Amino acid sequence: QIDGDRLWDSLMEMAKIGPGVAGGNNRQTLTDEDAEGRSLFRSWCEAAGLTMGLDTMGNMFARREGTDPEALPVYVGSHLDTQPTGGKYDGVLGVLTGLELVRTLNDLNIRTRHPIVVTNWTNEEGTRFAPAMLASGVFAGVLEESWAKDRKDAAGKSFGAELERIGWQGDEPVGSRKMKAFFELHIEQGPILEDEGIDIGVVTHGQGLYWLEVTLAGKESHTGSTPMYKRRNAGLGMARVIELVHEVAMDYQPNAVGTIGQIDVHPNSRNIIPGRCVFTVDIRSPSKETLDTMRERIEDGIDLIADALDIDVSVDEVGHFDPVTFDETCVRAIRDAAEALGYSHRNIVSGAGHDACWINRVAPTAMVMCPCVDGLSHNEAEEISKEWATAGANVLMRAVVETAGI
Amino acid sequence: QIDGDRLWDSLMEMAKIGPGVAGGNNRQTLTDEDAEGRSLFRSWCEAAGLTMGLDTMGNMFARREGTDPEALPVYVGSHLDTQPTGGKYDGVLGVLTGLELVRTLNDLNIRTRHPIVVTNWTNEEGTRFAPAMLASGVFAGVLEESWAKDRKDAAGKSFGAELERIGWQGDEPVGSRKMKAFFELHIEQGPILEDEGIDIGVVTHGQGLYWLEVTLAGKESHTGSTPMYKRRNAGLGMARVIELVHEVAMDYQPNAVGTIGQIDVHPNSRNIIPGRCVFTVDIRSPSKETLDTMRERIEDGIDLIADALDIDVSVDEVGHFDPVTFDETCVRAIRDAAEALGYSHRNIVSGAGHDACWINRVAPTAMVMCPCVDGLSHNEAEEISKEWATAGANVLMRAVVETAGI
Ligand SMILES: NC(=O)NCCC(=O)O
Ligand SMILES: NC(=O)NCCC(=O)O
Repeated sequence: QIDGDRLWDSLMEMAKIGPGVAGGNNRQTLTDEDAEGRSLFRSWCEAAGLTMGLDTMGNMFARREGTDPEALPVYVGSHLDTQPTGGKYDGVLGVLTGLELVRTLNDLNIRTRHPIVVTNWTNEEGTRFAPAMLASGVFAGVLEESWAKDRKDAAGKSFGAELERIGWQGDEPVGSRKMKAFFELHIEQGPILEDEGIDIGVVTHGQGLYWLEVTLAGKESHTGSTPMYKRRNAGLGMARVIELVHEVAMDYQPNAVGTIGQIDVHPNSRNIIPGRCVFTVDIRSPSKETLDTMRERIEDGIDLIADALDIDVSVDEVGHFDPVTFDETCVRAIRDAAEALGYSHRNIVSGAGHDACWINRVAPTAMVMCPCVDGLSHNEAEEISKEWATAGANVLMRAVVETAGI
Repeated sequence: QIDGDRLWDSLMEMAKIGPGVAGGNNRQTLTDEDAEGRSLFRSWCEAAGLTMGLDTMGNMFARREGTDPEALPVYVGSHLDTQPTGGKYDGVLGVLTGLELVRTLNDLNIRTRHPIVVTNWTNEEGTRFAPAMLASGVFAGVLEESWAKDRKDAAGKSFGAELERIGWQGDEPVGSRKMKAFFELHIEQGPILEDEGIDIGVVTHGQGLYWLEVTLAGKESHTGSTPMYKRRNAGLGMARVIELVHEVAMDYQPNAVGTIGQIDVHPNSRNIIPGRCVFTVDIRSPSKETLDTMRERIEDGIDLIADALDIDVSVDEVGHFDPVTFDETCVRAIRDAAEALGYSHRNIVSGAGHDACWINRVAPTAMVMCPCVDGLSHNEAEEISKEWATAGANVLMRAVVETAGI
């Protein structure tokens, strides 16, 4: 059994770094606050006797030795970066639970056969630099490192330059580590577990995703003196695309979602008809077929909308992953742990993307989920209870220790 | 006859201040660039022997004495501020034509009975500080000076503080001047004159306007793990309002227009359902009845949209003027001038708001319009020909001189 109070105190301590404006956090990736959060995590790892590794993408690997020098390590972790208006648990819980289970093993003087490595993956959120799960994607060989380092934030700064600036670029080649398994604990970020009063989600699958960046280009002109028939209104086009994405997602729900979250209107003046709108479509489904059909319907629909309004359109894919099926053995380890500890549990599909979704390609991987209040995440008001966190951490520890062997 | 080349040279000289990124201008009100434009205009006025007055709203009044010390001056002018992506003529043409007609009278050694005052009104565009035509509105007694000085830009800076900062706040109480008449030359900013091949628009009326700032508040949450039925998507609400405004305007066109030009989405992250959208509805019509009906339909529609999506809504009026009927005598002076000079002309309704619309409340007022290429304005590509500008300036001069008497 892990120490729920100690875990909770660490969560609250980390949440002091990059506070938000409404009780949550703004500790976006590769900011000074991210650097401060990393330093705190490193100091805790050192205090727990772990050795820190750092790769060229800034991924952090805190290692606890095993008894068998030849054995592949079991990895456990998540991410410390947050949304601009993020919660205190999204990602952070997974990293600090990794630390907590090591502290518990230290307290109990237990040595596992396989080493255990607690991991913090860089830029999971993808808000500052698209796509999400960038550094775990490079680790898994799905994304090119040079391409990843070239990603730019809204101010034009690159991932590579910012990683160097904050001093967290390591020497270790990314992706060089072999894993026995990878486990990630994460809050559900959806309402199912809380609604059904269940302690533990055993994550069997993850939704696939497309992020499409759409640019609509019309003609900026005067709102007062441009007759309706003369307009090439990119803003109206955007409105129709927002409605289209909603309609398409509604057609496939509950097995799909679709949203437009980020919008940039140019020149954004009250009395100018928008000349250019850039926005990102986010569509997801656990079924690859559904996901691809949605994308096709949306791209076709955008063309029709643009034609009708005489506006130009371009669509770029800025994020993509296929639906994921997690490793059977690892999933079973989690289910067995929940069962053995007497927690209620159910199988669940992850609605969000996670580093585990990429790592699943290069190592046997599975995830544990715990409930969050009202299914709310990516919101400063994100909340969980200490009991939920403790249950998730206990299940994680048991699955990890079973896999690492004693 | 004015000197078309000299007028054109002055326009091009002014356009060097606050250049845009695509051949136009970004010389927004109360910026350093605005201050530089004002200084250039003052130096030209002084060279032409005019005396500069400056009121507490930063309105500039360059006076050429008349022969009768008791006679009320004839005012002529427009504005030197531009949109963030504005053209070289919107407003500037009206101010510099006022200067050009004075230069011409100087050259011809003509003294009018009534003084002539060339005016630059502060913050006509209203992009940085809403509403538009702010300082002429205060001059006309429609807007409160203290309220106007409190208007904030997007960075939270106030009109009053910025006016002081750039050093163009005068001592003269605003609105203290009495006028025999006010004339304003402006580019049409719409397509009618060019499409019909007509030199001069005799502006008989101006459209009325409402600017409504709409705030929709839903709940920001995760795009991937929030089921469709659990969403309170402020972005979807905004899309529906954009479509609604378009539909309502289409119902009344060609006697109405409706647009959403400015949009702010919070927190504006690809994987967060928008929790709050703030945007401005711009609706206009030459008929007060139509305008009020449109507003009612839009406000009712917004309530229905918000109800259906379980989002909260507030609507604030941030700009308003009623449709305008210009002064018969002044309008006739313009029509007679066009006729006498042999220019083709037609009556026209101004689609945009102008300082003349406010001044019309406190002095006999009228406007002259000249064509602009493709009806395009509030766009850096805004263009006119030297011939069009010259024709407009000649008509303006003749109407002013007729009214000022010789
Ligand atoms: N877990 C999480 O919020 N990941 C960010 C990537 C996504 O949008 O799914
Ligand atoms: N003429 C002009 O563009 N005025 C700005 C105010 C408006 O939007 O009509």
